[in-house]
Amino acid sequence: MNFRLVFKLTGKTLMVEAATMLLPLAVCLYYRENPTPFLLTIPLLIVVGFLLSLLKSNDHFFPREGFFAVALIWLLVSATGALPFYFSGYFPTYIDCFFESVSGFTTTGASILTAVEPLPKGILFWRSFMHWLGGMGVLILTIALLPSLGARTLHLMKAESPGPVVSKLVPKSSQSSKILYGIYCGLTIIEILILRLAGMPWYDSLVHSFGTAGTGGFSIKNLSIAAYNNPAFEIIITIFMLLFSVNFALYFLLLRGKIKQVFQSDELRFFLVVVFLSIALISINIRSLYTTLGEAVRHAAFQVGSIISTTGYASADFNQWPEFSRILLVLLMFIGACAGSTGGAIKCSRILLIFRCIRREIRQVIHPRAVNVVKLDGHVLEEGALRSVHIFFSAYIFITLGATLLISVDNFSFGSTFTAVVACIGNIGPGLELVGPMGNYASFSLFSKTILSLCMIVGRLEILPILVLFSGNAWKRS
Amino acid sequence: MNFRLVFKLTGKTLMVEAATMLLPLAVCLYYRENPTPFLLTIPLLIVVGFLLSLLKSNDHFFPREGFFAVALIWLLVSATGALPFYFSGYFPTYIDCFFESVSGFTTTGASILTAVEPLPKGILFWRSFMHWLGGMGVLILTIALLPSLGARTLHLMKAESPGPVVSKLVPKSSQSSKILYGIYCGLTIIEILILRLAGMPWYDSLVHSFGTAGTGGFSIKNLSIAAYNNPAFEIIITIFMLLFSVNFALYFLLLRGKIKQVFQSDELRFFLVVVFLSIALISINIRSLYTTLGEAVRHAAFQVGSIISTTGYASADFNQWPEFSRILLVLLMFIGACAGSTGGAIKCSRILLIFRCIRREIRQVIHPRAVNVVKLDGHVLEEGALRSVHIFFSAYIFITLGATLLISVDNFSFGSTFTAVVACIGNIGPGLELVGPMGNYASFSLFSKTILSLCMIVGRLEILPILVLFSGNAWKRS
Repeated sequence: MNFRLVFKLTGKTLMVEAATMLLPLAVCLYYRENPTPFLLTIPLLIVVGFLLSLLKSNDHFFPREGFFAVALIWLLVSATGALPFYFSGYFPTYIDCFFESVSGFTTTGASILTAVEPLPKGILFWRSFMHWLGGMGVLILTIALLPSLGARTLHLMKAESPGPVVSKLVPKSSQSSKILYGIYCGLTIIEILILRLAGMPWYDSLVHSFGTAGTGGFSIKNLSIAAYNNPAFEIIITIFMLLFSVNFALYFLLLRGKIKQVFQSDELRFFLVVVFLSIALISINIRSLYTTLGEAVRHAAFQVGSIISTTGYASADFNQWPEFSRILLVLLMFIGACAGSTGGAIKCSRILLIFRCIRREIRQVIHPRAVNVVKLDGHVLEEGALRSVHIFFSAYIFITLGATLLISVDNFSFGSTFTAVVACIGNIGPGLELVGPMGNYASFSLFSKTILSLCMIVGRLEILPILVLFSGNAWKRS
Repeated sequence: MNFRLVFKLTGKTLMVEAATMLLPLAVCLYYRENPTPFLLTIPLLIVVGFLLSLLKSNDHFFPREGFFAVALIWLLVSATGALPFYFSGYFPTYIDCFFESVSGFTTTGASILTAVEPLPKGILFWRSFMHWLGGMGVLILTIALLPSLGARTLHLMKAESPGPVVSKLVPKSSQSSKILYGIYCGLTIIEILILRLAGMPWYDSLVHSFGTAGTGGFSIKNLSIAAYNNPAFEIIITIFMLLFSVNFALYFLLLRGKIKQVFQSDELRFFLVVVFLSIALISINIRSLYTTLGEAVRHAAFQVGSIISTTGYASADFNQWPEFSRILLVLLMFIGACAGSTGGAIKCSRILLIFRCIRREIRQVIHPRAVNVVKLDGHVLEEGALRSVHIFFSAYIFITLGATLLISVDNFSFGSTFTAVVACIGNIGPGLELVGPMGNYASFSLFSKTILSLCMIVGRLEILPILVLFSGNAWKRS
């Protein structure tokens, strides 16, 4: 392992993180709040980051360095991103701050706060801005800002980007990440403006757009979007949650006028079928709870969009819905968004590929001599890629069940314990019962909060980087 | 698809089923109970079976015919095995009888009866005897009794036997199934005698030994084994539940004096580690609920043995235990017994292989050029076999989650709904909350009972046969 290069990269990322904190600092100053939390953290990050970036290293950078660096950097960025929370004095312990920070960067949106409204605007801004930063990836940001990293950036992008296949839009990785960030910024700005036009205050539009763009879900209201009781806001946010669940490479195609190609995407079609079917089924199931069909459909669509995009905003307390709707939403928590979006969980393309592998297995029994391949978007997938999909899925389920056992020491109900893990590893936020959309993670023990924080990072980085980081083999000097 | 041969085989199996009903009929007559349920069913099975067995067919028999036949035969054997229940008048509807019959043959042990003690001894005997028949496999019984089936038997054994690799003990399949049945009968008789010696009445020893041997779990007491309040019975049954969870091929090795080879089995080691670790953790967790440590360990061992063997007997109501123990038991419901035993669920060898595949994936990142293979018992596994393991696991999880959604229309709690499916597909029987060890499946709707019955068959036949049966492709004439 080329530790020096990994640390050097870590140093650069910490400096970028310090730079991103200037924005919440500005918000603090604008609202005449106490800027100390940021004034303490920013210099610290710059000094540590600068010292690390001075390290001399050779250029050996292979996939293992990529995975290792991504895992380490995400842990450190979260640990340091927690410092403003800690210095603010609004959080009971540092572990709570770490949980909240991990939840921010991983775009989970799970909170240990029982009430968010008393917190200063600057702190809440930082909390939501983390979603926006983490949605696209803190390393991709570093790559976009510091193109000097060169050829090795592909290994980093592969390790940080969600989905079984990383689409390089253009031959140069740093160029690709700039295009992606461009699309990301563009969509975010459009959402901010539309929300503002619909009547949401500027500050609220900003933080809620950050939460939507990163598919995070932190709100500045205790009741989330339900607090506004405004159908227009709900509809706008539903649409944007779904837009941010789509592979960004498709927007690039769209910009280049290749509309036909966009709608030929197997993953997009699968995603749309799941979304519309779920909305229909839930609308029927919850019809009697609302006065009009339109209201039922609106709430069904919001909650489906919120969960499958892994955002986690709420326009209604789905924990109170009938069991069928609750369980359908839990299933969507496993499926998640499309690969190459800012959404989390297993991803539609992986689910689709597993379905196709099962179908192939059946066909092979029935027609043993036929040639059987698994395709995506018309291209035959290599067995190695399919194997990785299966291993990802198995590891995801194993970690979910294992973490459920670990946090069950807190002795909460089966539904709370299981869905807390599902909601954290899938980067969704709310689960059922105790951790329902109107609940929070405050009552978990510090041990469980640490486990759940790790689950969020495992989910955001799609498992392998964290397993590499914790593997004894990776720590050997090469 | 060679339908004629499949139907012919079905006919033969129905005649074998009729023969097996002579035993409960004898019990009926011995206890001077009404024999009508069996007197109506037996001639019916013989006539239908005989007519089907007269069909003329060619000899084309490929894996697809094996899978198709096994799935169809299990459905029909369950449907006809339900008739004595139906004619007895103790069950509300035919679907309830079908559920109970499927639960019997698949060795699940889930019951729709709210109280079993009022039922006649003959009916209860048949119910438990189904476990014994289904444990080893109704087709393996047919193969052992009718060796005329010839070379095609391997396809049937492969489709009916649990586990990723079918071990043929000797070159001839019908000979293998005779040896397996010999070991099975031997162990069952030993258990009956030991239970009798410990003071259990003959009838009770018989039915509980059938339930243990098939890892079924139907009891003749409402409180299951807890009703006897006898530590000796609990210890004996714990040991036998674990013995029946082990690959029977290992007993064959043991009989041939190859003791060293037995303990080199990776799966056996993994199974023992999981069992002892679970007993230790649960003992600590439930220590305060019992007066002595010995009592806590005894109950922990019984419940762990009962769940991992997928039997489902209870010596204590684990639904009342702390969440950690409850969830650990739910995890064991996924793992299940060893391949080649009468136990169900995913099987230890598959879990072990998936772990090794995940480890290989990590190693491949760290040392991309190293040769990485996955071994079991020192042999390198082919990628095709590993792929089947992954696909089995994925399909198992998909079906579990899908069925959970379907039966959630009954609007029971999340824990009840989810664990009902887990307990049915894993052929365990009891789950948590509503379907806990002192609960039952009576309150589910007929729709949910049908879905759960299908889950039990899917679990017992390890998914693929049922998927082949329900695949449109399989129904085309060849």
